[in-house]
Amino acid sequence: MAANGETRDEARIRGLVEDRAEAILAKDLERVMATYAPDVLSFDAVNPLQNAGSDAVRQRLRAWFAAYEGPIGCEIRGLAVAARDDLAFAHSLHRFSGTMTNGKGVDMWVRDTLCLRRLGGRWLITHEHMSEPFDPETGQASLHLKP
Amino acid sequence: MAANGETRDEARIRGLVEDRAEAILAKDLERVMATYAPDVLSFDAVNPLQNAGSDAVRQRLRAWFAAYEGPIGCEIRGLAVAARDDLAFAHSLHRFSGTMTNGKGVDMWVRDTLCLRRLGGRWLITHEHMSEPFDPETGQASLHLKP
Repeated sequence: MAANGETRDEARIRGLVEDRAEAILAKDLERVMATYAPDVLSFDAVNPLQNAGSDAVRQRLRAWFAAYEGPIGCEIRGLAVAARDDLAFAHSLHRFSGTMTNGKGVDMWVRDTLCLRRLGGRWLITHEHMSEPFDPETGQASLHLKP
Repeated sequence: MAANGETRDEARIRGLVEDRAEAILAKDLERVMATYAPDVLSFDAVNPLQNAGSDAVRQRLRAWFAAYEGPIGCEIRGLAVAARDDLAFAHSLHRFSGTMTNGKGVDMWVRDTLCLRRLGGRWLITHEHMSEPFDPETGQASLHLKP
């Protein structure tokens, strides 16, 4: 266990999540994709309901990166990680910020939950769930909430 | 392992998720609450960003149940479960249906991800993430998507 009570595997997964935030900032598509298992099932913040498989996730990531003019800021808060044997999960809040190609400024907090497996000695994301809650009165996604 | 390749723990968690769907249908608040750990962290489909602790989750469940005139239909599809030692996760799509007290009919699919721990011999949900994706063009939650 590390000083904070985390096991070595938990520290590795924390590293994976933090490294991924850097890869998002750099819009490094393949470095982000390297964190996903080939058969990943993604529940993304935007349509559709689900993206099955790494090809669908890559396509979605490419569109997301292309929608921003420059880098995509990615701050992580409240990251909790747990791992046993070859199974793990992690959840946190992500703050995404930047300027879209249409000139609109973005500064939004989203919720992120990851399910991971150790496959061939490497931890990979087999399921991701990222979302915004919505306001039931208006049906609008609540993009301006802060933790 | 069970016939479908699930371990006994995985079969138990599948049972917990299916039993919870029945408890939601019956609007049995305490039977649903019995599936959560006291320190559960919930990312719900509607505001706020997060609900921390079982009191916050109970309050939210109570409001949800009260918003429906009669029972809340809860169909589960694509349930995947994995468990190792005292840690598990599960994800699926939920179809909620019914009539709200304002007369509005509801028939919506949401994404659900659960993280669980075996505490005192019982599997309990320590983290739940339930959501709808939104349409980035309109900012509206996509309540009419179907799998």
